[in-house]
Amino acid sequence: MTQSPLSPELSPSDRTRHRRLREQGSKDRGALDSLLAAGFMCHVGVIVDGHPMVVPTVYGADDLHLYFHGSVASRSLVAAPEATVCVTVTHVDGLVLARSVFEHGANYRSAMIYGTPRVVVDPEEKLSGLRCLTEQATPGQWDYARRPNRKELAATTLLALSLAEASVKIRTGDPDDGEGPDAELGLWAGTVPLVTTFGEPRPDAGLAPGIITPPHVLDRTGTRLG
Amino acid sequence: MTQSPLSPELSPSDRTRHRRLREQGSKDRGALDSLLAAGFMCHVGVIVDGHPMVVPTVYGADDLHLYFHGSVASRSLVAAPEATVCVTVTHVDGLVLARSVFEHGANYRSAMIYGTPRVVVDPEEKLSGLRCLTEQATPGQWDYARRPNRKELAATTLLALSLAEASVKIRTGDPDDGEGPDAELGLWAGTVPLVTTFGEPRPDAGLAPGIITPPHVLDRTGTRLG
Repeated sequence: MTQSPLSPELSPSDRTRHRRLREQGSKDRGALDSLLAAGFMCHVGVIVDGHPMVVPTVYGADDLHLYFHGSVASRSLVAAPEATVCVTVTHVDGLVLARSVFEHGANYRSAMIYGTPRVVVDPEEKLSGLRCLTEQATPGQWDYARRPNRKELAATTLLALSLAEASVKIRTGDPDDGEGPDAELGLWAGTVPLVTTFGEPRPDAGLAPGIITPPHVLDRTGTRLG
Repeated sequence: MTQSPLSPELSPSDRTRHRRLREQGSKDRGALDSLLAAGFMCHVGVIVDGHPMVVPTVYGADDLHLYFHGSVASRSLVAAPEATVCVTVTHVDGLVLARSVFEHGANYRSAMIYGTPRVVVDPEEKLSGLRCLTEQATPGQWDYARRPNRKELAATTLLALSLAEASVKIRTGDPDDGEGPDAELGLWAGTVPLVTTFGEPRPDAGLAPGIITPPHVLDRTGTRLG
């Protein structure tokens, strides 16, 4: 499947325009790509019976699409196949501790992607989408594990959401009250970073003796997510 | 404010019934409480102009409510003050690497809370809600930082969402294909834990010399979130 990258600039619609003051919106396509590449868990927002529902699930992203399992949106899709979803991917980078409670918050990077997900039916795209999803969480795993057979492929509903309508918000750095009168209070202010790290792989309890942890899994130990 | 705890059993509505197979739904009120206590970031799902929108934001939870800033839902609230939101709090505990791609997934704990958020107008509840929000992320900070003044309180829209309609889903442990024919493939399977840890506090660049990091912030270093 040949894929040409999208425009280097995101094109926020009215839905993706930034309304808050302290966070910075980014129109940089690269910011979206690196944000998506840095994680594997998203929150999918759908409307079910007239109410919003927000479901966490794993995703995979390539240049054009975000892939996720249809099960999370199945009721919504059945009820309204043309309905929009909003998929949000967030990395929390730390706490922002200001002099005043009013200026407290968090440093984070977040992407929101809007669109109508397409059910992937082409078997080749389905395989490449599942590969994308598998490799996103664990690079090297697609070539290691047993790939889906025909029955499993048929039992899997894979959704593809275009990255065309996306928005990125990033909050970084110090609190915002360092130059106002509160700076005279003599209070400590700053940030407390949050770091997410992969730990040591834990073998399945039923693993036969002699099966070694493959290098691509072992190498993950101690590396950062996000 | 005296608050009696809710029923020890969650009461899932049709919206909060579990539909997937491998995750375990919990009806235990304690599971919800500990899940909420273990984080400070949630994803708020609202309907804006007929479309779902999922926004990350900080929260605070007490026995009865989840508090969050109204700014994230403001457009939605103005358009439909009686509208339902769905707030989801997720802790990702690790990767689940099975023998077959089909059984791959993540270990996680997730809570979904449905309801119509109430704008907190009573000044005393507003202060106690903001305290809850501040202490959730950084215990000890409410007594350390400068508290909101009248002007700041007026400028803050605080929402309270009842915890009465909530649902918890937890996926833990080994992959699910350890007893089937795939166990004979000789492939490694297991889990890779993900741990989120607070790092060393970073003083604001503009901090006057001699201001020490307060113990309640310093003590966070190296502790786990989630």
